[in-house]
Amino acid sequence: MTSIADQITRPTLLVDKQKAVNNIRAMKAKSDKLGLTYRPHFKTHQSLEAGRWHKQAGITGITVSSVDMAAYFAAEWQDITIAFPANLREADAIDALNHKVKRLNLLAESPGAVRHLAGVLTKSVGVYLKIDTGYHRTGIAHSDHKKINSSLRAIKESEKLTFAGFLVHAGHTYDVSGRAAVEAIHREAIAALEVLERTYRQDHPDMIISYGDTPSASLMEDFGPVQELRPGNLVYYDVMQMYIGACTAEQIAVCMACPIVAVHAERNEIVVYGGAVHLSKDVVEQDGQKIYGLLADLTDNGWSAPVEGGYVRKLSQEHGVIRVPSGMLEIYRPGGLVGILPVHSCLAVDCVDDCYTLAGDRLDLF
Amino acid sequence: MTSIADQITRPTLLVDKQKAVNNIRAMKAKSDKLGLTYRPHFKTHQSLEAGRWHKQAGITGITVSSVDMAAYFAAEWQDITIAFPANLREADAIDALNHKVKRLNLLAESPGAVRHLAGVLTKSVGVYLKIDTGYHRTGIAHSDHKKINSSLRAIKESEKLTFAGFLVHAGHTYDVSGRAAVEAIHREAIAALEVLERTYRQDHPDMIISYGDTPSASLMEDFGPVQELRPGNLVYYDVMQMYIGACTAEQIAVCMACPIVAVHAERNEIVVYGGAVHLSKDVVEQDGQKIYGLLADLTDNGWSAPVEGGYVRKLSQEHGVIRVPSGMLEIYRPGGLVGILPVHSCLAVDCVDDCYTLAGDRLDLF
Repeated sequence: MTSIADQITRPTLLVDKQKAVNNIRAMKAKSDKLGLTYRPHFKTHQSLEAGRWHKQAGITGITVSSVDMAAYFAAEWQDITIAFPANLREADAIDALNHKVKRLNLLAESPGAVRHLAGVLTKSVGVYLKIDTGYHRTGIAHSDHKKINSSLRAIKESEKLTFAGFLVHAGHTYDVSGRAAVEAIHREAIAALEVLERTYRQDHPDMIISYGDTPSASLMEDFGPVQELRPGNLVYYDVMQMYIGACTAEQIAVCMACPIVAVHAERNEIVVYGGAVHLSKDVVEQDGQKIYGLLADLTDNGWSAPVEGGYVRKLSQEHGVIRVPSGMLEIYRPGGLVGILPVHSCLAVDCVDDCYTLAGDRLDLF
Repeated sequence: MTSIADQITRPTLLVDKQKAVNNIRAMKAKSDKLGLTYRPHFKTHQSLEAGRWHKQAGITGITVSSVDMAAYFAAEWQDITIAFPANLREADAIDALNHKVKRLNLLAESPGAVRHLAGVLTKSVGVYLKIDTGYHRTGIAHSDHKKINSSLRAIKESEKLTFAGFLVHAGHTYDVSGRAAVEAIHREAIAALEVLERTYRQDHPDMIISYGDTPSASLMEDFGPVQELRPGNLVYYDVMQMYIGACTAEQIAVCMACPIVAVHAERNEIVVYGGAVHLSKDVVEQDGQKIYGLLADLTDNGWSAPVEGGYVRKLSQEHGVIRVPSGMLEIYRPGGLVGILPVHSCLAVDCVDDCYTLAGDRLDLF
């Protein structure tokens, strides 16, 4: 770390590649053991280089969250699912992308969207029906077989569209904490998918049931009829996943190195260059206190465990205000560096320009 | 609007230039009337072109929040204050910048930081002492004359440093709502500054007392000994300022145009392509409901007043879930566009790549 810390002058996201690779390989091993395909969501790391760590672990297909992100990764990946309702205004870009890769899968959740895609695309494409098992963000309600059937008919009417399967994101696991709470949501989702499996498998033997937020993928072992897992966050994990119970602090593979610009001993606080434009304003709460990140000390090999009682209390555009345990303030001084474990690694990656491995290699970002 | 709306395929920040110019000119007129210098904070718009609108209104000096941002604006501005505690790790970049512009002002809040700057800079520079009047983010406590005096002595000891004055940001006005609450904070800040004026003016006749968050600058009329106002947000305003009472909805000069990707009539919601990576996760609360933006309809001339009862209920990385008043859902369909008035315009500008005026001119962004 000495070499790279010396060069850091502004907020810089550090990636512990070994931790990230361990996270990837653990999930790949678990998927293999369960007979599932692991199709990681790349919206977290947004980096071709981090993508290669997945390739080296034997991964062949990926998930992304936008057409632009798919186009970025198409340089090195030929099997891509855009896990976001197909944006009809980007039909031209989707069509161009589809001609570049071997296999593209889109999401639809209405017969109208399906027919629109059928009308504008010029090459065959896979279409997942997005299914809602209780998160209520997008998707056809799992019990709405009428709408599922009309959407399936719309897919069948088109020569260009192939029914890829059912895709679920039980994102409400992010709103709970602890294995039992995650499991309750997970069981509900799996029960819903079992009905779809029984109802639609015979007519659609090749359909894939795709599933898997990071809490479920990390904590659960029984995925019922699911064939594919798509967690993304687990490549880096973060404070939110730690609070949910999906990872330990040791598994968190990213840390924002921030210059200290002020020390306020009278209120046990330090102020760093590192604000909402670097970390995002995503937040967890503990005992009524909003927490925008956890304090860590930078070390020769990366960073320390979270400093007990040290957390980001407030973020402005460029400022982070960090509460430090009393009696520990002497080690911090303006011009020094501290680490912040981000609450939400996906958004922190999206915010920053500067992202380096501990070996000092810059990660290209989408 | 027709022309530009037709070209929008993904989340795009629209700027109503006329509203922005009106906001700038109103603040300039108010400052002129009160005999104050208006030195706008450019961290909100982050655009050389939007900077020119200020120049045309007669503004000659600006405020920024980072060294990099100062370097960007140095292409067209010669008088810049970096309103962020001088980051000692960027001393080389600060020094290079200082050689490029006619007048650079930095912030310090300790004798140690002052001496460090004196030791590394190679050209004369102005140094404001950052004063805390109750926000408790950064700054020397206004009553801590001992620390103010030792910092002043450290400035005096250096031939390169000039004492520029006292600089305050009463940012706790962002946490309240209504004129009376803003005024209470404002009066406290002004009273503190009056003591500094009486204590230090005689020895420092050229010192500037610099002040002015957007709520105070928008709502207050009496600034006591203040000579310079630095509000930034008011160029565009936003939903947060509207809730504080610092602006009307009509004054909000930015709107995120977002493609609709799903309509959920059963829960009166639409889902748009437009998430936390476009709007940031800054939030206001009303009656216990978190609000991440207000719904507006795009029109031929820009956008409508906020749709009553329409708001962004939840943001994921790329998804925005918008609650729509019941009975109004028919006008929204996948493939259409809606507008979202952002909660925090500074962060929304920082998030986006695509920013256009209503005339279709792309705004270059820092």
